[in-house]
Amino acid sequence: MIRFDCDYTEGAHEAIMRRMIETNMEQTVGYGMDPYCDSARKKIRAACQCPQADVHFLVGGTQTNATVIGAILRPHQGVVCAGTGHINVHESGAIEALGHKVLALPGVDGKITAEQVSAYVEAHYADEAAEHIVQPGMVYISHPTELGTLYSLKELTELSEVCRHCNLPLFVDGARLGYGLAAGDVTLHDLARLCDVFYIGGTKCGALFGEAVVVPDPAVLKDFRYHIKQRGGMLAKGRLLGLQFDTLFTDDLYARINARAVEQAQLIRAALNARGVSMLIDSPTNQQFPILTAEQREYLTREFVLTHWTHLSDGRDAMRICTGWATRDEAVERLLEAIRTMPEA
Amino acid sequence: MIRFDCDYTEGAHEAIMRRMIETNMEQTVGYGMDPYCDSARKKIRAACQCPQADVHFLVGGTQTNATVIGAILRPHQGVVCAGTGHINVHESGAIEALGHKVLALPGVDGKITAEQVSAYVEAHYADEAAEHIVQPGMVYISHPTELGTLYSLKELTELSEVCRHCNLPLFVDGARLGYGLAAGDVTLHDLARLCDVFYIGGTKCGALFGEAVVVPDPAVLKDFRYHIKQRGGMLAKGRLLGLQFDTLFTDDLYARINARAVEQAQLIRAALNARGVSMLIDSPTNQQFPILTAEQREYLTREFVLTHWTHLSDGRDAMRICTGWATRDEAVERLLEAIRTMPEA
Amino acid sequence: MIRFDCDYTEGAHEAIMRRMIETNMEQTVGYGMDPYCDSARKKIRAACQCPQADVHFLVGGTQTNATVIGAILRPHQGVVCAGTGHINVHESGAIEALGHKVLALPGVDGKITAEQVSAYVEAHYADEAAEHIVQPGMVYISHPTELGTLYSLKELTELSEVCRHCNLPLFVDGARLGYGLAAGDVTLHDLARLCDVFYIGGTKCGALFGEAVVVPDPAVLKDFRYHIKQRGGMLAKGRLLGLQFDTLFTDDLYARINARAVEQAQLIRAALNARGVSMLIDSPTNQQFPILTAEQREYLTREFVLTHWTHLSDGRDAMRICTGWATRDEAVERLLEAIRTMPEA
Amino acid sequence: MIRFDCDYTEGAHEAIMRRMIETNMEQTVGYGMDPYCDSARKKIRAACQCPQADVHFLVGGTQTNATVIGAILRPHQGVVCAGTGHINVHESGAIEALGHKVLALPGVDGKITAEQVSAYVEAHYADEAAEHIVQPGMVYISHPTELGTLYSLKELTELSEVCRHCNLPLFVDGARLGYGLAAGDVTLHDLARLCDVFYIGGTKCGALFGEAVVVPDPAVLKDFRYHIKQRGGMLAKGRLLGLQFDTLFTDDLYARINARAVEQAQLIRAALNARGVSMLIDSPTNQQFPILTAEQREYLTREFVLTHWTHLSDGRDAMRICTGWATRDEAVERLLEAIRTMPEA
Repeated sequence: MIRFDCDYTEGAHEAIMRRMIETNMEQTVGYGMDPYCDSARKKIRAACQCPQADVHFLVGGTQTNATVIGAILRPHQGVVCAGTGHINVHESGAIEALGHKVLALPGVDGKITAEQVSAYVEAHYADEAAEHIVQPGMVYISHPTELGTLYSLKELTELSEVCRHCNLPLFVDGARLGYGLAAGDVTLHDLARLCDVFYIGGTKCGALFGEAVVVPDPAVLKDFRYHIKQRGGMLAKGRLLGLQFDTLFTDDLYARINARAVEQAQLIRAALNARGVSMLIDSPTNQQFPILTAEQREYLTREFVLTHWTHLSDGRDAMRICTGWATRDEAVERLLEAIRTMPEA
Repeated sequence: MIRFDCDYTEGAHEAIMRRMIETNMEQTVGYGMDPYCDSARKKIRAACQCPQADVHFLVGGTQTNATVIGAILRPHQGVVCAGTGHINVHESGAIEALGHKVLALPGVDGKITAEQVSAYVEAHYADEAAEHIVQPGMVYISHPTELGTLYSLKELTELSEVCRHCNLPLFVDGARLGYGLAAGDVTLHDLARLCDVFYIGGTKCGALFGEAVVVPDPAVLKDFRYHIKQRGGMLAKGRLLGLQFDTLFTDDLYARINARAVEQAQLIRAALNARGVSMLIDSPTNQQFPILTAEQREYLTREFVLTHWTHLSDGRDAMRICTGWATRDEAVERLLEAIRTMPEA
Repeated sequence: MIRFDCDYTEGAHEAIMRRMIETNMEQTVGYGMDPYCDSARKKIRAACQCPQADVHFLVGGTQTNATVIGAILRPHQGVVCAGTGHINVHESGAIEALGHKVLALPGVDGKITAEQVSAYVEAHYADEAAEHIVQPGMVYISHPTELGTLYSLKELTELSEVCRHCNLPLFVDGARLGYGLAAGDVTLHDLARLCDVFYIGGTKCGALFGEAVVVPDPAVLKDFRYHIKQRGGMLAKGRLLGLQFDTLFTDDLYARINARAVEQAQLIRAALNARGVSMLIDSPTNQQFPILTAEQREYLTREFVLTHWTHLSDGRDAMRICTGWATRDEAVERLLEAIRTMPEA
Repeated sequence: MIRFDCDYTEGAHEAIMRRMIETNMEQTVGYGMDPYCDSARKKIRAACQCPQADVHFLVGGTQTNATVIGAILRPHQGVVCAGTGHINVHESGAIEALGHKVLALPGVDGKITAEQVSAYVEAHYADEAAEHIVQPGMVYISHPTELGTLYSLKELTELSEVCRHCNLPLFVDGARLGYGLAAGDVTLHDLARLCDVFYIGGTKCGALFGEAVVVPDPAVLKDFRYHIKQRGGMLAKGRLLGLQFDTLFTDDLYARINARAVEQAQLIRAALNARGVSMLIDSPTNQQFPILTAEQREYLTREFVLTHWTHLSDGRDAMRICTGWATRDEAVERLLEAIRTMPEA
């Protein structure tokens, strides 16, 4: 079976593995204070054109989301996000476990708009009983979203303006940021300009694990290392994180390997479209959500592992097909061939 | 101005005030271990026909909800309730502050059904990623609901059966229970049979403050006094709570004063209906939600304080009119007169 | 039996009860926005000579401590206090329940010093592993302490200076403040000058219940009403709190009734000393801790309820004798007589 | 400079790195459900002679401690441990962040006794105000302790008996368990018999990272995978953990490499003793705490990185010297030589 069910089925890019072997028996200090982390921090700051930024390395996405959100909010505040936001649906209540309500807005294709946030905040303060309601304290978006969609630079700019106007820190979950950078018009520099905190996903974008949190204005996450330690995210051998991001941000590796996965996904999408298959969501990134008949599904899943996404009322099902930095061209070829030969709708 | 905006605008029933004066300089032990609390506990157990029940006295509703829910759930669990549930919308995130997600289901007129709960629980365990999703750990309903509606005995029985089948404790917020007992077919004995925890509201039903938590099977809230103390709900002079509930459960006072308020509310409703005013919700209890034109609203609010509930798309507004144990018949008379003379719709 | 075991055995001062009866059927808005709360706030501000202060009313001490501390600290911070501090030993972990470590310093007679705080903070930041250790985020003291002792104005001034130097808010638990004001040289104005938050205890000092939180610089507890609501401390009929403090701060009632209790306690102490009984702690306030032989203890506890405080290695026991605003002179007389006639040591 | 300051300065054992490379491009499911995790679980169960045990893999120690403790305790409970316990002093308040007080007992050489636990629990329930005090809910010990000491099988057996008698789960932090197994008389089988939860440390004992939590009776940590996810400890590419523990538990690798480090540490200790240097603590494991003069310290730290442990009142300092699974014999040789040539005390 060939897996197209998610983008974390393999290990790490070989360049990372090579350096891990090379440096394995070196002795360094722990907890992210080593030279590899320093070097990675420098390269990330440069890539973001944000020399004053703080950069912190954590192990995984849920951990990063919770640690950042917990460090920003006050006890009476909640985090505004799309109903489909990862923190709202797939983190086992990690945000609530820190004491905060997730204030879910109905999103469209996984996204929320500047207007929605603005209206929500206005409605809160207009309510006579505002003090009896959780106060909106920050905004969380995912880019790409959990549905593979992207904020345009214009949309992100508007959201950023509303957030600043409302004094709400804007936090971008970039667990799949590599694919977003490849497919959209938002750059790392834009993120550093427009957000208060964002992270550059490693786990799904070429690393064994690791997320690089970028804080353009370090005052936003004062004392953040205490929080990382308290939340269990401070890796003893922190250099493993530094080394990986240092490698990914050398010679544009991060950009290259993730762009390739997006191209593969778009080939798959085109092949599906050519067979008359429509998509649940119009995704420009590495995740595709074709709507398949039972026969088509059965045909494809003989050879490929796909994720079942949702059941439609007409009896068809939307599936998720993911490429990733590690997807081999031969695997894509075989999938394209299978799409070409699968039953008619 | 005469207030009909809520049911906690006055102090307490005069019988309570009288006993508070009489006993004021008595010396008793603190923290709810005094003879007045003991006596109140006995009377409540008798009223519930549940001699083995634990009865605890707390000061207010939000505190009671949070303390009970926090004592029942495990960290990875959330509480299922209607989207309009008080814990979901009007407690400033008290439940999340204890670490738990509120799992809000779309309610109809403030209520959820046995089918909904059953389907939700099934869907949870059927999800391959269940462990990444907050586990449903208990069910919370309000009776009456925040919209004045009631569960019928049949509905409550079905809900109870589903909860027991799914091993989910059922908790009933009875902040306005007095009005519910007067208007519906569910008795205290039914609550003791069908629920795992419920409380008998004092604050809105004749007391200065206080909620009596009934736990038919004490094992459900083992060590609950530690929780009460930790959450700040253990009143030093606990006898003030005992004394109030002891009085309310003497000579059916609780039943009598709350039944009267329901009658008053139904008179008001009839008068509104007679003027062609329709109600946002069909409420058999002390809260009524008439839909008024701007002119009607303006006319009534010259003399009466009502609560603005919601703005309708046709330009009209739903208002909330509340009677309560303290509502004087003369006040009702004046309101009825005003309704009779207010402008046509 | 006559109770001298604590200072919350009776109801409230008769002047409070009288006004509660008088105003019982008045209609007011809830949640502390009523005229009685406004009036009480004004009187407290005047008594503190601090016209810009915020004043909030909560129901009980544990609730107040937790709500204030939870509103001030950031997640990675703890609260510095004496090992004997109420928050460290007698609140069922209410502070930890909000996520914060209590950083207990060894106190002397229930007090900590400016030097201790300063040394603790310095040691924290000097530690290479500081980020792995809870950061001191504020200082909590009780005045009077749990052992009846008092900070002198000099001691409080020094503590305040260190706290300001270290940027640590200073919070004073004044659950028994009335007795402290009567017995020491620290005034309400001093507290308003030297602390960031303090509260004026009602429950133990003449009220049925209630604590008045004073925030000289309101920015220190921004949005505090959200916190009060979330933590379950916002009384629906908030006027009950306003009314009580309004009464206590009319015609110096608070000062008068608590001063009288201190005088009674000092009479008892003198009588004990006259019999050669030594005290565990040198307390100038309403709590006295005589060290008694088994025979003396047995003799006194035939007629009086005292609190057992601690067992000494020589076989004797320290007991706590409390007077309070409600202690009758006849009761004191009988206790003095019993002390005069109890067995020799 | 050669580092002897801690046991996490290098990467992982070469056998682990080799397998990581070999399997790098394999595709597996995530979150610990892959064949490598399954295999590692089997081997660990076998090594513990506990076929029914649950085995979970987490990334780091603080995370593991918090996740386990948070999953066991109820909100009103705290965890009993030695004052020097890692959870009490070096985890940035991770346990309190989950709502629980750390109930620190004065330890001797980092250990607590069965008698202490028993007395503490008895005193709690004997206290009239027990409900106002955090309830002891479990016991945490480290083996080896933070000071390198070990519980003997007899001591552990007694502790286990008391814990069972008091109904307190016993949890053993085995961050350095490899060194403890090599140096003491407690086996994995003993741990599985005597504890409710323990973990086998990987990070400090040969792995890149990872801790294997063993739950002899799986009911003790029901639904634990929800907790792991919620606390941010569920690694997406969980196979990295499985692979490492599978390797460590193949051909006794774990036992062998850690035993070697203990031998090296004992050689260093002997050399120090031979020079008349005394030890702060009598540690049979890989951590040694020699008390050095300023001259000796200055001499050794020219070539070696040691950890400063504590300053003694006589002007000398206790240092920590750590060997580890990765310590080369040549490094030990050079240290032994330096010890032989360092200044007299």
